[in-house]
Amino acid sequence: MDALEERIMVDGVVVMPNILRVDSFINHQIDVALYEQMAAEIARLYSDVKIDRVATIEAGGIALATFVSQALGRVPVVYAKKDNSAILSDDVYSATVHSFTKGKDYVVKVDRRFINPGENVLIVDDFLANGQAGLGLAGIVEQAGARVGGFAIIIEKSFQPGRSLLESQGYRVESLARISSFEKDQPIFH
Amino acid sequence: MDALEERIMVDGVVVMPNILRVDSFINHQIDVALYEQMAAEIARLYSDVKIDRVATIEAGGIALATFVSQALGRVPVVYAKKDNSAILSDDVYSATVHSFTKGKDYVVKVDRRFINPGENVLIVDDFLANGQAGLGLAGIVEQAGARVGGFAIIIEKSFQPGRSLLESQGYRVESLARISSFEKDQPIFH
Repeated sequence: MDALEERIMVDGVVVMPNILRVDSFINHQIDVALYEQMAAEIARLYSDVKIDRVATIEAGGIALATFVSQALGRVPVVYAKKDNSAILSDDVYSATVHSFTKGKDYVVKVDRRFINPGENVLIVDDFLANGQAGLGLAGIVEQAGARVGGFAIIIEKSFQPGRSLLESQGYRVESLARISSFEKDQPIFH
Repeated sequence: MDALEERIMVDGVVVMPNILRVDSFINHQIDVALYEQMAAEIARLYSDVKIDRVATIEAGGIALATFVSQALGRVPVVYAKKDNSAILSDDVYSATVHSFTKGKDYVVKVDRRFINPGENVLIVDDFLANGQAGLGLAGIVEQAGARVGGFAIIIEKSFQPGRSLLESQGYRVESLARISSFEKDQPIFH
């Protein structure tokens, strides 16, 4: 998506080898007009399938999930919660996810009432790198007897194994910007 | 807001004395059509002032913040992050917030680039109970040299001291549903 790649070139900051900071428009400050454009593009990419629900993981995926739902005709959204949220009931699906960034595991949970058998679920997130969070959430969708309709990602780091991992499980992956490498502190797009 | 009160009566669950679970439409599963209505009502309530920015705290407030921004003409959104997020720079405003629910303190942070001096900032959140999170975020707004235009809340527990605390600091508070008590496991509205 050209508008997104251009925005990343202007406002993205490479802070360490392979870390791209997009906090001025994606995941701390939110540019709502850009999110609306991204959601419209995701709805277009998935216009060949019927999506019954959008799922993501708190907190980075919530803004995207809300706008994608809107673009898909306001299907229900569910966001997985991390660890022991006070508002969760005990009747949950859960998955353990390894974070390479933080060097530890965490648990994500979804109340069993909020994914129904037979639904076609679109999983969305801001980043795809190692694919561990996505794989965990896909496992929850399948525990519920629902299907993973695919993944929709804002920024994919295609030099990391996330896409290969998800595709090896048979999942469709669409990303709006694919970064193949960083050179001289600038992202290189596919 | 009648549609919200009716929804709380139908789908809200009182799980302990004074704990209302609204996870089927507000803060785990998200009803996007209802959020759009709530955002429109908040924009109407604040139609007498110019709002430059919407601020909230992850994760419960993010969905509301995105839709309120949309209803206000897509003003920038910023959400405060809790504790040590990997994506934060070091150059932040911060506030310590006491959680009565969890019985401990936590720190919320906002990058200094994402609140500008002179802005009029609307603070939104899903719940108002003790007002500690709101007070912390208001302090961050004022550290930045910006003004708190007011608070917009989905559900206020008016038997707890949040509103009094915020109003005693001179802040305007608008809530879409005000629960004055729970009787026989049903919320009583103002």
